[in-house]
Amino acid sequence: MEAITRIEQALAAAIEVVIVPGCPRRLAEAVRHAVFPGGARVRPRLCLAVAAACGQPESPAAMAAAVAIELLHCASLVHDDLPCFDDSPLRRGLPSVHRAFGEPLAVLAGDALIILAFEHLARALADQPKLMAPMLLTISRSVGLPVGITAGQAWECEPQVRVEDYHRAKTGSLFTAATAAGALAVGADVAAWGLVGDKIGAAYQVADDLRDVAASAQELGKPVGRDALLNRPSAAGELGVDGAIARLRSLVIEAIEAIPDCPGRAQFAEVLKAEAQRILPKELAQRAGTWI
Amino acid sequence: MEAITRIEQALAAAIEVVIVPGCPRRLAEAVRHAVFPGGARVRPRLCLAVAAACGQPESPAAMAAAVAIELLHCASLVHDDLPCFDDSPLRRGLPSVHRAFGEPLAVLAGDALIILAFEHLARALADQPKLMAPMLLTISRSVGLPVGITAGQAWECEPQVRVEDYHRAKTGSLFTAATAAGALAVGADVAAWGLVGDKIGAAYQVADDLRDVAASAQELGKPVGRDALLNRPSAAGELGVDGAIARLRSLVIEAIEAIPDCPGRAQFAEVLKAEAQRILPKELAQRAGTWI
Repeated sequence: MEAITRIEQALAAAIEVVIVPGCPRRLAEAVRHAVFPGGARVRPRLCLAVAAACGQPESPAAMAAAVAIELLHCASLVHDDLPCFDDSPLRRGLPSVHRAFGEPLAVLAGDALIILAFEHLARALADQPKLMAPMLLTISRSVGLPVGITAGQAWECEPQVRVEDYHRAKTGSLFTAATAAGALAVGADVAAWGLVGDKIGAAYQVADDLRDVAASAQELGKPVGRDALLNRPSAAGELGVDGAIARLRSLVIEAIEAIPDCPGRAQFAEVLKAEAQRILPKELAQRAGTWI
Repeated sequence: MEAITRIEQALAAAIEVVIVPGCPRRLAEAVRHAVFPGGARVRPRLCLAVAAACGQPESPAAMAAAVAIELLHCASLVHDDLPCFDDSPLRRGLPSVHRAFGEPLAVLAGDALIILAFEHLARALADQPKLMAPMLLTISRSVGLPVGITAGQAWECEPQVRVEDYHRAKTGSLFTAATAAGALAVGADVAAWGLVGDKIGAAYQVADDLRDVAASAQELGKPVGRDALLNRPSAAGELGVDGAIARLRSLVIEAIEAIPDCPGRAQFAEVLKAEAQRILPKELAQRAGTWI
């Protein structure tokens, strides 16, 4: 079965454990809306890809981590979309959770998803007790204080911020957790794989900045993207479009070079290259040429 | 050392582990503001009291659970105070987190505290791996779906609600977790102790309803009469003040009768009686007479 199908099934199963009779109906709907339909499920796919590269494509511990990481990612999107942050009306082409269910249920759905992520880890790793603490800490570090995505989002509330700290915490940390957790699940080198995730996370952030500029360029009367509007640090704003594409290229190459020795090293490198093509905005693909 | 002093120190230590250089300064301040100065720390005291009643007043696992439960309680207060819920300007006599730091940092501080609660459990129970899954599940159940405090708060967004479901999830669940976790930490009967917590939680809810009607704004540190204002189910509204006092009395008696056999049974009963006196609003104490 394709990894993406297994991920969708595992996410659905994790949610259905807690959405049972007795659960407030609208909160249950808001939670489902936050998770399905999903995006590209990049982080859980990455986690499973690491386990597969190390020879354990079916690792249950890697799947437990993948599910927890995706639930935390979904929670962060719900809260980031709130009126007090991005006030985003849409997410993945549908109304954002607060637009569909109201702000109270959006706050609660995010909270419930954070809790469910850790609860799921406890349930799924109950038969591997020694893995529980390191796995939980690997994942909690990527979302909490001082350098997880919660901290990353909070840099927007500081008078001064180092762009690198902001991006690494807000975007990079869950990618780092995805590769580190995949490695941890199968007994591979956590630090070495974490570094790969760090590079990939940085690459995604640059691609995201590029998408923000490329998308807004198409919109009439809106010369700048949301990042610029919100005065957020952006690689595209800082380096220009061509500079950002060059930065994306070198990050992907660095990620590939950082892949530790493992049975699936070559295949993992191919996955990264394909992913790099996928995340580059179509409008910029021609400009980039055969860029990698 | 008094339990309350040990709790304050353990909470401070848990927070300082993650508030380190590199953490966004204002989020760090918001998190501290959410936890200090605290209220009566009822839930962690209860958790430690169960461990003490079972002969282990210094149980590190009970303290780990007590800290996690209080962090989750503080998180729920921060989010409940948000403009989209209670829009409370005050908490414990000081500006609520969103009033002091703005709404974005209040959302993030709540998120960070939820994450920290589970992270703390992982760290503090790392040397007792077999306890980790059951402890994590005991606590996550009390805050998540389908019947934890997140669900409890969500009942306010449903067109219809059973008062009992609402109160049990919104208030009772963390009390149940406090006694159950205390019992779990020392190998005592989790279900039996959970029932004691269930009764105590119900008693606190009634006392809270009474305070809402009776107390002055100064004494409570938050606006009064909000339940009626927000059209929330309330024992005082339903049973009248005298009826609610009678209900409080019988719940405390039921809690005392439910205490399992243990070395500190009598002392635990005294603690409950004293606590029942403490939580009854002063204005009503005379009306209640020697009520228990």
